[in-house]
Amino acid sequence: MPRYKLTLEYDGTGLVGWQRQETGPSVQGALEEAISRFSGERVTMMGAGRTDAGVHAAGQVAHCDLTRDWPPETVMNAVNFHLRPATIAVLGCAAVDPSFHARFSATARHYRYRIVNRAAPLALDRDRAWAVPQPLDAEAMRAAARVLVGRHDFTSFRAVQCQAKSPVKTLDVLDVQRDGAEIAVIASARSFLHNQVRAMVGSLKLVGEGKWSAADLAAALEARDRATAGPTAPAGGLFLTRVDY
Amino acid sequence: MPRYKLTLEYDGTGLVGWQRQETGPSVQGALEEAISRFSGERVTMMGAGRTDAGVHAAGQVAHCDLTRDWPPETVMNAVNFHLRPATIAVLGCAAVDPSFHARFSATARHYRYRIVNRAAPLALDRDRAWAVPQPLDAEAMRAAARVLVGRHDFTSFRAVQCQAKSPVKTLDVLDVQRDGAEIAVIASARSFLHNQVRAMVGSLKLVGEGKWSAADLAAALEARDRATAGPTAPAGGLFLTRVDY
Repeated sequence: MPRYKLTLEYDGTGLVGWQRQETGPSVQGALEEAISRFSGERVTMMGAGRTDAGVHAAGQVAHCDLTRDWPPETVMNAVNFHLRPATIAVLGCAAVDPSFHARFSATARHYRYRIVNRAAPLALDRDRAWAVPQPLDAEAMRAAARVLVGRHDFTSFRAVQCQAKSPVKTLDVLDVQRDGAEIAVIASARSFLHNQVRAMVGSLKLVGEGKWSAADLAAALEARDRATAGPTAPAGGLFLTRVDY
Repeated sequence: MPRYKLTLEYDGTGLVGWQRQETGPSVQGALEEAISRFSGERVTMMGAGRTDAGVHAAGQVAHCDLTRDWPPETVMNAVNFHLRPATIAVLGCAAVDPSFHARFSATARHYRYRIVNRAAPLALDRDRAWAVPQPLDAEAMRAAARVLVGRHDFTSFRAVQCQAKSPVKTLDVLDVQRDGAEIAVIASARSFLHNQVRAMVGSLKLVGEGKWSAADLAAALEARDRATAGPTAPAGGLFLTRVDY
């Protein structure tokens, strides 16, 4: 039974997120439906990360098993054909060893959060970035971000509904880069808690505005209480950019 | 009577273009309506370039006259407020001399055309780029583009409905840059004919595919006949990025 690894891009606007739900269109549901239409098989598509409603992906990874041994390019083209005009695309497809698991084999997940720091609302980047009109000090955000890098209990940056067994995670990268009005927050880790990146970005924004110091961020981390950290940044600015294996 | 210069961003998807029309929402119409709602005045908004349906802008410029002397920031914020949730945003507003004319004072217009050269359809860049699955040789496109730079009769790259008095234009820049799967065609001139950038991009794509040589492009220019040049590239890939004065 051949296993296929799919690399995916999607525009999360209007989707309920990765996971199949009764409440609306999901990435998983759309992919399973497309697989079924082309192969006649009912599969379960397993994703590396369960992105939330409105969150985008430029390099999500998923796997599924098919009975028949299709050339990977056929799987990719057929799924893309049946996804139309959905805002989901298969960028690549490869036959992989049955021991490969999109979620459990992943060694790193990389996210990018986009802030556009300007007074005008977003026309071209609507739902693709967080528009923050107050001037942000990206250097202060960058310096403060170092507080969160490393192995910590991230309870303060974890959604109430998070299902992870432990709140302890190792954050490998949390960088802040400014390019004109655009500020990108880059985050990499083996795995993240639910809403962790958006909660960290919401707190870094407070630092950028000058409302918080790096010490305030450290205190929020130390408190292990979601109520002590900043608000969760909007979903539309978040992109799952790559998954490593 | 104070004159205001507005710098604009818009997502052209779903708009009939710059110009006010009965057939659907236009940039000009939306701006005039927003001005009217905030100031009570009926104005005519004059744009630097009459972008077509589906064409985007990151730096369109327009002007209008108001009876009352508002602070420019008030005009910008009020228009942005009344444009919501339209996909048009005022990036900047300045009070200018009454001799300033958005269209006639412009000394250069800069466009960027985005091609994404990959097999997969576009999810994140749908309606924001032209997806070309055939491998394109961007270096060949770049070399051939030089044929079109300079002062020429661009009849072969002009829409039938073009209203310009003369087909002779001076093209200052036509460059092709590749960054991964993305190919950008950069075009700058004092002014362009109707559909000129998209017609040039459609022909450069033929060069990129290896169907045309630079000599074929030169022959098409020389022929002064729209039928001899390549097809018009889709609107969604085109961005009016800047207007100089």
